[in-house]
Amino acid sequence: MTETSVDDGVLSRRARLLGPTYHHFYEQPLLIERAEDVWMYDREGRRYLDAYNNVPILGHGHPQVVDAICEQSRVLNTHTRYITEQPVQLAEELLGTMPADLDSVIFTCTGSESNDLAVQVSRAATGGSGFIITDCAYHGATDVLAGMSPEEGNSLGAGVYAVRPPLRPGDGQRFAADVSRCIEQMRAAGVRIAALLLDTIFSSDGIAAEPRGFLQEAVRAVRSAGGLFIADEVQPGFGRLGEALWGFQRHGVVPDLVTLGKPMGNGYPVAALVARRELLAEFARTRKYFNTFGGNNVACAAARAVLRVIRDEGLMQNAQRTGAYLMEGLRSLAGRGAAIQDVRGAGLFIGVEFRDGAAQGADASAEVRRIVNELRARGVLVGATGRGGTVLKIRPPLTFAPVHADLLVQELERAIGAC
Amino acid sequence: MTETSVDDGVLSRRARLLGPTYHHFYEQPLLIERAEDVWMYDREGRRYLDAYNNVPILGHGHPQVVDAICEQSRVLNTHTRYITEQPVQLAEELLGTMPADLDSVIFTCTGSESNDLAVQVSRAATGGSGFIITDCAYHGATDVLAGMSPEEGNSLGAGVYAVRPPLRPGDGQRFAADVSRCIEQMRAAGVRIAALLLDTIFSSDGIAAEPRGFLQEAVRAVRSAGGLFIADEVQPGFGRLGEALWGFQRHGVVPDLVTLGKPMGNGYPVAALVARRELLAEFARTRKYFNTFGGNNVACAAARAVLRVIRDEGLMQNAQRTGAYLMEGLRSLAGRGAAIQDVRGAGLFIGVEFRDGAAQGADASAEVRRIVNELRARGVLVGATGRGGTVLKIRPPLTFAPVHADLLVQELERAIGAC
Repeated sequence: MTETSVDDGVLSRRARLLGPTYHHFYEQPLLIERAEDVWMYDREGRRYLDAYNNVPILGHGHPQVVDAICEQSRVLNTHTRYITEQPVQLAEELLGTMPADLDSVIFTCTGSESNDLAVQVSRAATGGSGFIITDCAYHGATDVLAGMSPEEGNSLGAGVYAVRPPLRPGDGQRFAADVSRCIEQMRAAGVRIAALLLDTIFSSDGIAAEPRGFLQEAVRAVRSAGGLFIADEVQPGFGRLGEALWGFQRHGVVPDLVTLGKPMGNGYPVAALVARRELLAEFARTRKYFNTFGGNNVACAAARAVLRVIRDEGLMQNAQRTGAYLMEGLRSLAGRGAAIQDVRGAGLFIGVEFRDGAAQGADASAEVRRIVNELRARGVLVGATGRGGTVLKIRPPLTFAPVHADLLVQELERAIGAC
Repeated sequence: MTETSVDDGVLSRRARLLGPTYHHFYEQPLLIERAEDVWMYDREGRRYLDAYNNVPILGHGHPQVVDAICEQSRVLNTHTRYITEQPVQLAEELLGTMPADLDSVIFTCTGSESNDLAVQVSRAATGGSGFIITDCAYHGATDVLAGMSPEEGNSLGAGVYAVRPPLRPGDGQRFAADVSRCIEQMRAAGVRIAALLLDTIFSSDGIAAEPRGFLQEAVRAVRSAGGLFIADEVQPGFGRLGEALWGFQRHGVVPDLVTLGKPMGNGYPVAALVARRELLAEFARTRKYFNTFGGNNVACAAARAVLRVIRDEGLMQNAQRTGAYLMEGLRSLAGRGAAIQDVRGAGLFIGVEFRDGAAQGADASAEVRRIVNELRARGVLVGATGRGGTVLKIRPPLTFAPVHADLLVQELERAIGAC
């Protein structure tokens, strides 16, 4: 079969009908037809190891989630203006995984909706309008979040201040000092702080995990200035980091607001804002927030299945075990003289940073781009992250096993050598 | 069974665990357990005629949508960074229902995300920042849309101007004049217009349908000032108005941007922005918009099933036929001396406006509130809309049949008389 006949015109039809905002991964776009567990299959039946997608956190098409969606879809799918059991049951189970202070939940459909709501709530709760984020943060696609997502090349919104992420062990104090400096700059500009908004694994900044606890000082600084700490758990949450279900737990801090998204329904659009109840009071007094699809019965059934499978299949423990094994393999590869500057992460969220000039003439960005495409050609899917895209982003479904880790390391070694 | 044993604590658990933003319909909250077609069932098996919900536009739990969701969920559910058929097929089928100028689509998950994106796109396309909406509009729950949703009691955002909706036939010219006056006010304030954003059936303003074409003059005024027209079809769209699939078509105008939401997946969270391609260019140049769940394969399968069923089951035609029959029944009721001031609408989106003082001592708001609750007690679900909530909002699934219309009119007559 030639490339053209495989295409069936889908690429040109897509380019014509979908808006010019649509982009695809890889120089050779990947035409996917089906997926199962950690494998995605193209139209010719060739399989690709998925070492990238966090949404299907239980593996693609997990039968327990699909069954929950089908079953609930046949019985009832309505909104929360009627009283039904599913959102209450999900709230109980979800809040049961959080520190006791985080006692209330509002359901949304996407991580963007959750972060957008967190911004609105923190403004109402503090009376402030200033936000601190990191240099290469991504928090969502709504208007207000575009100004808090410099990863996308957007300029910062009014009252938004960015600090350098703490990518190296030992950066924690510098990070806290930068946050404190931001608060001073806000004061000088007459801006009152509303919140520090951080992805607790710094997904788009290039992944920052160590040492555990480095967030504490920055959070203390924000709180003593009257601001809140919003933990964006859209990417790190749901057990991916191995040691704990939520990224903030690795740092021994209890956030004021927690936002959830992507993997919450293993692909079904469901997300949430979790909060200390008292912080919601002022927002609820002045706003009649309602989210039509948020917390619908099917979304809740899917999300309950996800929490159940993570527990029953021991996926957090697997993330820790397989993640440590994979990290070891990657570090050993780095030690064998490869162009790798740093391997870091937690559980099954790992960044492999490349150094400039290691490949002949290539800067690290170009080298990572080449490796990502070479790995795709070799049947392994990963991405790039960090300023300039110098970090390989490895973030597979949590059913990833040692055999998959071996395959990834083996193909990465070949891809590095294939220039 | 007593009320308490029916409750099972779900009300108190809900009040404790869900945020204080959650409200329920009716003085006696409705505990729903299942739903099928136009019927919702409470825990005791009592059935309620659903004359309110627009999301299950094909009827609750339509088997073709459920089957499409189940089937696709087992095969593949991924995002649009990979090339897959489903979003392209949906784009073809959806754009096939629109005027040729509206040639590009961006998928989102909710009507809020679609309207938020439309705001961002129209700013980029025009260089303007001013928006005109109606007095009691509702366009969504994100930060920027809160300032364009005065129905919720929010104050208007910066650069947002509100005009009185054209509720009575003959209001069209006054409405266009008010829009022109807004544009003048913007000019005086140094604000350049970005767009006129209107729900084409004025759902939250109290429902405005006649005469067809009344939007044209206002749209002309906005365009001649360099602004765009965004048709918010989240509520009127998908055949509900009977004569046409989209509300703007009743007015003989082609919008620059069209936003879709609620019924698009019959309950599955899927939504879209449809646009003239050239308007997306500047936005796409400066922003890397990506929506993780937007246009996922299952969302697309659900939305394709909805379009297919609307066509195959002739639901638009049914909306026109049954809507006309229901309107006749309601007008006859109004003629029999009831406290009804006006019956208006199109297809199966009908408003019944009440007058002040018709019931002893009661203003229209209180009377409508009483009737909504009385109808709930009589097994019929409707809502209220418009400033002050003086308009009964009737907006059932499009499978609503004459027998359902008869039941609604009969119970409404009894509810009116039951004070």
